[in-house]
Formats: sequence, C-alpha cells, structure tokens
Amino acid sequence: MAFQQRRRVQFSETDAAGIVHFANYFRYFEDAEHALWREAGLSIHPAQSAIGWPRVSASCDYHRALRFEQEFDVSVQIREISRRTITYEGTIASHGEHVATATWKIACVTKLPDGTMKSADVPHEIAKRLKPL
Amino acid sequence: MAFQQRRRVQFSETDAAGIVHFANYFRYFEDAEHALWREAGLSIHPAQSAIGWPRVSASCDYHRALRFEQEFDVSVQIREISRRTITYEGTIASHGEHVATATWKIACVTKLPDGTMKSADVPHEIAKRLKPL
Amino acid sequence: MAFQQRRRVQFSETDAAGIVHFANYFRYFEDAEHALWREAGLSIHPAQSAIGWPRVSASCDYHRALRFEQEFDVSVQIREISRRTITYEGTIASHGEHVATATWKIACVTKLPDGTMKSADVPHEIAKRLKPL
Amino acid sequence: MAFQQRRRVQFSETDAAGIVHFANYFRYFEDAEHALWREAGLSIHPAQSAIGWPRVSASCDYHRALRFEQEFDVSVQIREISRRTITYEGTIASHGEHVATATWKIACVTKLPDGTMKSADVPHEIAKRLKPL
Repeated sequence: MAFQQRRRVQFSETDAAGIVHFANYFRYFEDAEHALWREAGLSIHPAQSAIGWPRVSASCDYHRALRFEQEFDVSVQIREISRRTITYEGTIASHGEHVATATWKIACVTKLPDGTMKSADVPHEIAKRLKPL
Repeated sequence: MAFQQRRRVQFSETDAAGIVHFANYFRYFEDAEHALWREAGLSIHPAQSAIGWPRVSASCDYHRALRFEQEFDVSVQIREISRRTITYEGTIASHGEHVATATWKIACVTKLPDGTMKSADVPHEIAKRLKPL
Repeated sequence: MAFQQRRRVQFSETDAAGIVHFANYFRYFEDAEHALWREAGLSIHPAQSAIGWPRVSASCDYHRALRFEQEFDVSVQIREISRRTITYEGTIASHGEHVATATWKIACVTKLPDGTMKSADVPHEIAKRLKPL
Repeated sequence: MAFQQRRRVQFSETDAAGIVHFANYFRYFEDAEHALWREAGLSIHPAQSAIGWPRVSASCDYHRALRFEQEFDVSVQIREISRRTITYEGTIASHGEHVATATWKIACVTKLPDGTMKSADVPHEIAKRLKPL
C-alpha cells in the first residue's frame, strides 16, 4: 500500500532558524503512516488494544528546508512486512523538489499487565490489509 | 507548597520569530508542577493509577520573549485545593525580569473501564501533602 | 472574520493519559488563526517582514478530552481589533459536543535590529482585511 | 569532545502508548549536542549569526521504551568533522540499560539575504574547539 497527503507548514513546527525543526519531519511521516492504516480500514492504536507498534528504528535524510506556510506532499509506502515488523519508506516533496527521504520500522508487541511490552507476530488480518505494493 | 526550577531555552522550543513558541510556556509550567508533586513525595501520573488529573483551564500572560539558550526560572505554587480541583499560580522570570504569569486548574477524575473520566474527590493524602502555602 | 477547520487528532499530540495534551489545543487554535489570515489574503509571518505578532495572553477552558484519530472542528473569530492588538475567540467541538473554548490576544511589534521588539500600530491594510464580524 | 546529561521524562513528551514519543528522542540528542557546544565555549545559533547548521541526516535505533518521570542519561560525541559537516553519535541509557543509539550529521551553511542557504566550510575556530576524541 501507499498513501500521499498534502499539508502546509504550521508556525509551531518552525524553529529559530526559520525552517521546520528536523524532528517534526518524523511526525509528518508518522501522520501519513497512520492515514495509510486508516485508508486500509485499520487503526494503528485502537482503544483498549492488546497490541502496540513501537518504533524499532527511524532515519531521515534532509535535502531541502521547509518554511512557514509552505505546502508539501508526504508519501509513504510499505516496503516490507516481516513476521514481527513492518518497514516503511517515505518521501517529502514540495513544488517538484525533493525535501526529505525516510525509512522506519515498527514492531508488533503485546502489552503485558505490568506495562512492559513483548514482541509478537503481526496479526494476519493486518498484514493482509497492508500488503506492500 | 511552592517549587522553583531553573532551565534553559532549547532550540526545538523556539519558532520562526526567533523566540520560544507561546504554547511551550504551558509545558514549562506543567514540568514545574510535576516537579512540585515529586518534591511532595508524589507522582501525578503513577503507572496503572485509577485516577487522573486533566486540565480544566489554563491561561498565561506573556510579558517578555525568551530566546535560544536563555536561562530562566519557573516558579509554581498551589493557590487553592478545593474538593475536586487544584489551582496553581506560576511565574517565569529571567535575569530579574518578569517573563510570564500563569494560572491553571486541574480536576481529579476516576478513569472508567471504557476510557471516559468521571469527576472525583481529591484524595485526602494528596491534599495533605500539597497543602497550599 | 471567522474561520473553521476540521482536523483529526494525531498520535504525537496525545500523552500518557491517552488524550490530547492540553498545550496542543493552543496549537490547534493558532493553526486556525493563521488559516483565517490566509483566508483574508494575508500571512501573519511573511518572509523578511519588519513586523511581528507575539502573544500577549492566551487562555483555554477544557470541557472534554480528545482521543487519537478523533475528528474535531476548530472555529476562530476576531473579537476585537484595537490600535495595537487583535483579540480572538475560538471553540473546539467534536460530534456536536463542546470540547474547548479559548481566547487570546496578539500584539503588533516592530522588530529592531538588535532582535528586540517594540509595540507598533496594527497596519491599516491588515485591520481592514481582518475586520471583526 | 563528548558530553553527557541526565534528564527525566516529562509528561508532554509521552504519547497514548504510555511511553516517550519516538520523535522526542531526536530532541533529547539535539539538546545534548547543543550543551556540548556550550561546554566547548560555543553557541550553535548565536544571535544574528551569518552561518547556520541544518541537519543533513538523522537516525535512531530504539532498544527500550522510556516512561513518565523515568531518569535517563543522554551521551553525545563528535565522530567526525569533515570540511563542511559534523557527524555525531549518541546513546541514551537508563538504569544501566541501553535505550537508544543515534547518529546524525549537520552541515555548515551561509544564510543568503533571500533566506536560502548555501553550503560553507566549517569555521576553523569551531572545528578546533569541537575536535573529536
């Protein structure tokens, strides 16, 4: 699956260098990832769910800056679904120029009563709906 | 009770106007509030707690801007503990100048199994420890 | 002028209580405020602008919690434009229920070469375009 | 150079999964990076500076979750200073356990009058003070 969404830089996302703070790119990609799940008829964090999806890794290459009120497109696609993890690729572009490229991996976990998490298999129903391109 | 902590403006807290984004002042005050609870031997959000403390209201007057790496002091004190709420007052100062003044109120709630919240009395043990000046 | 926008709670906006962190409501209102300016053909922070609009005060009353993926509407309107300030009122509603009510004031300032700010009159052209209802 | 700082998880840094939101780790590392510059007698973003240091890339591996009020140590060191970039490595640990490992690279740029940025050499004085271990 793949998903793309257009958004606009909000003031609180910028920093004193006058551009979007680099950590906010990870939120942009995560927002698009969760929209992709909704597009597949799923929620990544339903109320009272017994499983969760913590990040295993996340990386981003920054090619260009984004400024206040600039419009941009966030694209995300699933690169791989393994037994216990899902790996995504994402890009941000604005007015035909590459802004950022990212890749990140989430792991399926069961939440134990004491609050800790234990690695678990990606549920079949979820893997089927998110099937990579 | 009252509590004061010194901190320094971090880069991610600034915005494109070159100053701390106004919404971050509410985090500064909340961080000091939670430190006050720790000082009183309490945690405002212990693991698996049956009660919670959502905000009822929050307001802040901004007198001066804060810039990257500027040091400042956040002071918070409890103004009133009513049967079901706690009201705080806070100030931020830097190098002898008033930066901001705030007041906010939290309510004690019980968390119901379906995730909703129901107003509850402030536990006696907590009221005793947080007793206003 | 008035403006309304629909949005959806993003995961990074929630906190460990399972609801939107209270400080993020101020971002929701600010985003809608800036969209109102764009609707009026203006930008509140154009590149290399000689003036700025820091917050003078901001307050919010919280009536209900917002949860991950919940949809809600943010409404903002201009209540008053004085010689040097603009005062807004805003509300957040979701599925027919009141979620929050806010009011905040911004001041027009001139940016001095040393980075400090000096109170200034609201430019006539801006006041005309933003004229309160 | 290397630098380590102890901090505590703040409530606004957590998300609805009950743990620190993954994007906030990048802020933790950046805060420690800037503290390292101060330790070296430098500021990464002095007022009216003609140069800036945007991110070229950032990546983080997440080994364990952090929870509200948990104490942890952020360590950062400079791995390499090339002609135009600086590369860092960082780790987060808590109570003797690995929490996260990160690496990121910043580039030196000159700010042009129109707001765009142009790659520039790392000033000699800065390279000397930040000299990697």
